[in-house]
Amino acid sequence: MAAASAIPLITLLTDFGTADSFVGSMKGAILGINPEARIVDLTHEVPAHDVRAGAYLLQTATRYFPPGTIHVAVVDPGVGSARRPLLLSTSTQHFLAPDNGLLSYVLAEEPDAEIRELTSQKYFLAAIGPTFHGRDLFAPVAAWLAQGESLDAFGPRVKDAVRFEIRRPALVKGRLVGEVQHIDRFGNLITNIGYTELRDLTEMDNWLGLQVKVRKAAVKGLQRCYADAKPKKLAALVNSDGWLELFCNQARADKLARAKLGDRVEVRRPR
Amino acid sequence: MAAASAIPLITLLTDFGTADSFVGSMKGAILGINPEARIVDLTHEVPAHDVRAGAYLLQTATRYFPPGTIHVAVVDPGVGSARRPLLLSTSTQHFLAPDNGLLSYVLAEEPDAEIRELTSQKYFLAAIGPTFHGRDLFAPVAAWLAQGESLDAFGPRVKDAVRFEIRRPALVKGRLVGEVQHIDRFGNLITNIGYTELRDLTEMDNWLGLQVKVRKAAVKGLQRCYADAKPKKLAALVNSDGWLELFCNQARADKLARAKLGDRVEVRRPR
Amino acid sequence: MAAASAIPLITLLTDFGTADSFVGSMKGAILGINPEARIVDLTHEVPAHDVRAGAYLLQTATRYFPPGTIHVAVVDPGVGSARRPLLLSTSTQHFLAPDNGLLSYVLAEEPDAEIRELTSQKYFLAAIGPTFHGRDLFAPVAAWLAQGESLDAFGPRVKDAVRFEIRRPALVKGRLVGEVQHIDRFGNLITNIGYTELRDLTEMDNWLGLQVKVRKAAVKGLQRCYADAKPKKLAALVNSDGWLELFCNQARADKLARAKLGDRVEVRRPR
Repeated sequence: MAAASAIPLITLLTDFGTADSFVGSMKGAILGINPEARIVDLTHEVPAHDVRAGAYLLQTATRYFPPGTIHVAVVDPGVGSARRPLLLSTSTQHFLAPDNGLLSYVLAEEPDAEIRELTSQKYFLAAIGPTFHGRDLFAPVAAWLAQGESLDAFGPRVKDAVRFEIRRPALVKGRLVGEVQHIDRFGNLITNIGYTELRDLTEMDNWLGLQVKVRKAAVKGLQRCYADAKPKKLAALVNSDGWLELFCNQARADKLARAKLGDRVEVRRPR
Repeated sequence: MAAASAIPLITLLTDFGTADSFVGSMKGAILGINPEARIVDLTHEVPAHDVRAGAYLLQTATRYFPPGTIHVAVVDPGVGSARRPLLLSTSTQHFLAPDNGLLSYVLAEEPDAEIRELTSQKYFLAAIGPTFHGRDLFAPVAAWLAQGESLDAFGPRVKDAVRFEIRRPALVKGRLVGEVQHIDRFGNLITNIGYTELRDLTEMDNWLGLQVKVRKAAVKGLQRCYADAKPKKLAALVNSDGWLELFCNQARADKLARAKLGDRVEVRRPR
Repeated sequence: MAAASAIPLITLLTDFGTADSFVGSMKGAILGINPEARIVDLTHEVPAHDVRAGAYLLQTATRYFPPGTIHVAVVDPGVGSARRPLLLSTSTQHFLAPDNGLLSYVLAEEPDAEIRELTSQKYFLAAIGPTFHGRDLFAPVAAWLAQGESLDAFGPRVKDAVRFEIRRPALVKGRLVGEVQHIDRFGNLITNIGYTELRDLTEMDNWLGLQVKVRKAAVKGLQRCYADAKPKKLAALVNSDGWLELFCNQARADKLARAKLGDRVEVRRPR
């Protein structure tokens, strides 16, 4: 399990937005306990209460951080209710999050991670109401963890963390059928169809002839990069994370294809 | 008075937004003088020129920071005019801000704070026009303060800092009458009615029967947490800061109640 | 040329927005290589794919940073195409950016800067697709540069970096004719007419009588600061960066004058 780094590094991912004092308060709570902690903002713009989007972004954003990093993730519509606060530790990193599925993508990648329920109240801030666990519970635990407290001090191991199903593409009558799993700031449609599945469907030499369909739009062939596609036309490529992505050079693919999260995406071999 | 910390920690709270180069310039001005300073963003999304909102967020966000922290707050419609630049020092922290009421909430909590007018021009950056004191005045003073300069080097003590009245709830014919003092990113209505006033009104055993009114909407009883309330119904609780808060599980309370900042809120004892 | 600072300081300026995992991933890529790097966000809200706006903000925001700072700038519609990735080094700072004009303003100020093409693939992260050079190329190079790698290790010198023309004001029949080069978050119109050109037009004693025209609106005289102007009226001043700026006390000048980027601005001597 991950050891606390010599330089404690704590990242934050929330749906708090940056217009309020939520994020500032969390930073204060961390630094008040551990003034040497180094805080890194991942994003505070997860759509409000959208646990599924937060889960996807968490796994994507944290992949490259150094061993010992502590990630605090708070998208928590059930704050203060019976849902448990968790600490997940992989062989290299730590994740603090409510037990509501926010760790689903991390767990899919790291099925052997150790999970603990945060029960040791001595690591929490005293607060009057239970509405702000980001500041009163997850932030101080992160600060103490960065301080070098042992994992077992925070609470007992649990095995039954909530996780939602992460849909994988299926091969149906010779076609790959997947879905839009994320829409990014540029309107690109990131599907859940990966590099490996495409290779299993047909060899790379044939990718120029692949047919990709989303809603009523169809695209032929994969591009190498955004600039290679004709302007204002829907196109597709395999992106840097290895996902099949629909995009539109100089415009938004989501607008053009009227596509939204969860829309079906089909890939067909060249005939 | 607060001593500069071994690890200089400087926070920023402004209405500059993050789309422009204002914030980057301030960070450059600080680090150009004191490359070891550690800068923490609180928020840059205070509504443009809204001193009152900035004052509330400043006090809320800074509460938990460690001793020696230097907070730079800039919401400054009168920049470059006769309004004075101030340095407020409590027993543990420092605040740099224009003299326009932005320190009102901090001063309400810390009436004994020392206030100085920033007059020593040698700590300012040379600039052609007086339109950007965030970068040219407050940032460099923060950097020098973090460097260990003595408080008196920056300017003389003053006693008459501008502060606006912070309205407190009143007991009117047996009812608590307060107002909405902040609306957060989730649409929650944070009132200026505190935990203590509620307890003075009636003992906690009776809180389930309390009646809360805002505009035409009425709520009966306080919940413990957001998830305890029926979905899409207006509800109330005491939040983590000890304020009575109106909220709506899975929707926005401000929309539902058509409430805005300053709206009257009434609390009545159970009959 | 700039030596890497003892405390590696890396700034980020992108058009990635903060709602996605792009920025978090870049930070992870940097810290994964160089866990001691100190990362400073300048802005991630450059309008999507707007290289010209990014170039202006980059030069404005980075001016005050200490020697050795490494600035990573990514506004990169041509990512993965033939456009080269560059490292520009002035006598004090470094800039990493795609070769698409993003360095134009920096180069206008620093014509003697050394520019290198990033060709040493050993400093890049392995990635499946070429869609995210911010994370896979610019971030790791910044991390290695902060680690103390020599400039020549990253690739050969080049002389022909892409740069767009930065329009300067002209004197036409005794009038200064320039344009709106930036509109900031408050709606202020920052022109490309500088302090020096104004002084060349007429001596400062006459500035109170200067006439400034943008579209159908005309302003007489320059103010010293925003608060000196009548509320809700278009007014002008020389701002802290030395630019002639049209503004409106308590309202937005861009709305009032219906002005947009590139609009012609004329300054006439008092008669």
